[in-house]
Amino acid sequence: MTADTRQKTLNQAQLVPIVLDEGQRGYDILIGSGLLDEPSSWQGLSKAASALIVSNETVAPLYLQRLRAQLSKYYARVDAVLLPDGEQFKDWASLNLIFDRLLETASDRKTVLFALGGGVIGDMTGFAASVYMRGVPFVQVPTTLLAQVDSSVGGKTAINHPLGKNMLGAFYQPARVIADLDTLDTLSQRELSAGLAEVIKYGPIADAAFLDWIEVNLDALLARDKSALAYAVKRCCEIKAWVVGQDEREQGLRAILNFGHTFGHAIETGLGYGEWLHGEAVGCGMVMASDLSVRLGLMPAEFLPRMRALIERAGLPVVGPPLGAQRYLDLMRVDKKAEGGEIRFVLVEGLGKAGMHAAPDELVEMVLATHCA
Amino acid sequence: MTADTRQKTLNQAQLVPIVLDEGQRGYDILIGSGLLDEPSSWQGLSKAASALIVSNETVAPLYLQRLRAQLSKYYARVDAVLLPDGEQFKDWASLNLIFDRLLETASDRKTVLFALGGGVIGDMTGFAASVYMRGVPFVQVPTTLLAQVDSSVGGKTAINHPLGKNMLGAFYQPARVIADLDTLDTLSQRELSAGLAEVIKYGPIADAAFLDWIEVNLDALLARDKSALAYAVKRCCEIKAWVVGQDEREQGLRAILNFGHTFGHAIETGLGYGEWLHGEAVGCGMVMASDLSVRLGLMPAEFLPRMRALIERAGLPVVGPPLGAQRYLDLMRVDKKAEGGEIRFVLVEGLGKAGMHAAPDELVEMVLATHCA
Repeated sequence: MTADTRQKTLNQAQLVPIVLDEGQRGYDILIGSGLLDEPSSWQGLSKAASALIVSNETVAPLYLQRLRAQLSKYYARVDAVLLPDGEQFKDWASLNLIFDRLLETASDRKTVLFALGGGVIGDMTGFAASVYMRGVPFVQVPTTLLAQVDSSVGGKTAINHPLGKNMLGAFYQPARVIADLDTLDTLSQRELSAGLAEVIKYGPIADAAFLDWIEVNLDALLARDKSALAYAVKRCCEIKAWVVGQDEREQGLRAILNFGHTFGHAIETGLGYGEWLHGEAVGCGMVMASDLSVRLGLMPAEFLPRMRALIERAGLPVVGPPLGAQRYLDLMRVDKKAEGGEIRFVLVEGLGKAGMHAAPDELVEMVLATHCA
Repeated sequence: MTADTRQKTLNQAQLVPIVLDEGQRGYDILIGSGLLDEPSSWQGLSKAASALIVSNETVAPLYLQRLRAQLSKYYARVDAVLLPDGEQFKDWASLNLIFDRLLETASDRKTVLFALGGGVIGDMTGFAASVYMRGVPFVQVPTTLLAQVDSSVGGKTAINHPLGKNMLGAFYQPARVIADLDTLDTLSQRELSAGLAEVIKYGPIADAAFLDWIEVNLDALLARDKSALAYAVKRCCEIKAWVVGQDEREQGLRAILNFGHTFGHAIETGLGYGEWLHGEAVGCGMVMASDLSVRLGLMPAEFLPRMRALIERAGLPVVGPPLGAQRYLDLMRVDKKAEGGEIRFVLVEGLGKAGMHAAPDELVEMVLATHCA
């Protein structure tokens, strides 16, 4: 985006820059109310003859026409493809719906994809953009709290495989992220809570003061207070930008963003995708990972009840499904962080600090026995 | 590979380095006889608990056990997955066979994939490696002339879509390319000719002296003279390394490697994948592209008969299938080089020099009318 546009947009919205490769690459996250209908949000993207909006059956009736109206100012043709809604559809079949549409409309190497929806839409659109003609530009337009604070930022894209969550994908950065806070008004309370799981995550792994802030402001967040949401989205994006800027391809540090996700992915895959929302599984997974942090002596005992209470207040499950310890362990052994069959957990090592740790199976089984029913 | 290993291997084989990002990344192409059974070929790759060999039903009976024997020295587990043989199987379904096997065997982020076969196997293995857990290392072990001189080098990976050839893929570089010339002994004459199409290609676009050399040595190449093949493979890899080193992601120069491919891909997609071999379609496509170069005044009239005679001598088709001009044009409009519906052809601008050109539909129709029956 040009300096001018950037300044103009800054007047209306928060702007968090993502800086990669010491400034050689990067993009902006715009955060604010009314961004969807604000022309400057969409200015300055790469020129193309056409754009394709990818959305789902739930989000499209709410926002598709408004986005299309804005994009029609910049692209001679604006097409749309609607995918079925839900984690269970984050697969090859849905991905191919995007490719079919791109090829039916003879979209070229410059066609820009717009991901209008939550994390599933963002992950699939980004992966499709990375693959179509070996890479076309894409823009994230996250409409859920979870996508605004986490999945739309940082360029991790993926689909699920029946045997493992997010197993197939690419590191592929968007050209811009446009997080219109007003779209959170239409979220179900269950979706809002799921997003809060990822908000809560950032505290213990990176920012103890933010954890305090969340505890104080959780009721405001649950009541969708716009200024509380704006602060939370901005702070989460800042932390994520800081982490991704140092380790785009998860060679090390970036893995801390997966706090609660090793247990969480096992819940999602074990129950069948879509049974629990991703944020719900992460919430419950953070309870387990907090317990494991305590059992390994990395955190004092009071850390577990503190995390469990906060996660429960956020409206998230704190008791995992009874898949059986062996099934949990089998599922976690194909986690992307595992190496040579050894599961590696992201654990908290002090408030605001996390790292990777292996753990004896017996200890993990005790954690599972304590938190599953 | 370490300097020691590199030196040792150099004594036995030709080595062409690929240098990317001004030396920050790169890898080696080893070319020689007996490399498959030579332990140093496989030394110094990244350490992992397991390897997966991807091959097909035709190549595996010939070479799989020998490759497995070598790799077993370096990896605790060596698995294999065999795909059906042929361009018509370069699709999602085959790709998923690779993913299924990787997940069934709980392969991790370090697992190394080995592509043992021709261009189809190399393209699919590379794409699978780029996608599995968002990227694992892979090694190209090309066993066809076409793969040794072209497709295994440079990191272009892809699968086909019913509406367009190589439409879905990634730029993803191998860790090494090991081209054992002895594997060319088992090629059918048809496959050998198909490979010669890509050999011939390098002359007009990049090296006029190499075009002369091919004309003089074509009979030796067709008779599989080992020293002629060794020179051809090495020279093609040198040219490709030079091009890819300047333009890995095909922002400009790299497109010249697609000489003959715009017409050729239309033949492949139009007839149905696998009907003609890729090299056959490229051979015929080069006749058409040579004619178009002449008709646009870029080359003198004698260029066309010279190219046609050489391509025909190589055992390749020089007359295209009668798909109809409109169908050819429609297919070429979804070519990856097209922009906003305008087809862009790689044309020869002087012996050893090529560039991108648009052409009036009427001229293209005249070319098609002349060379199709």
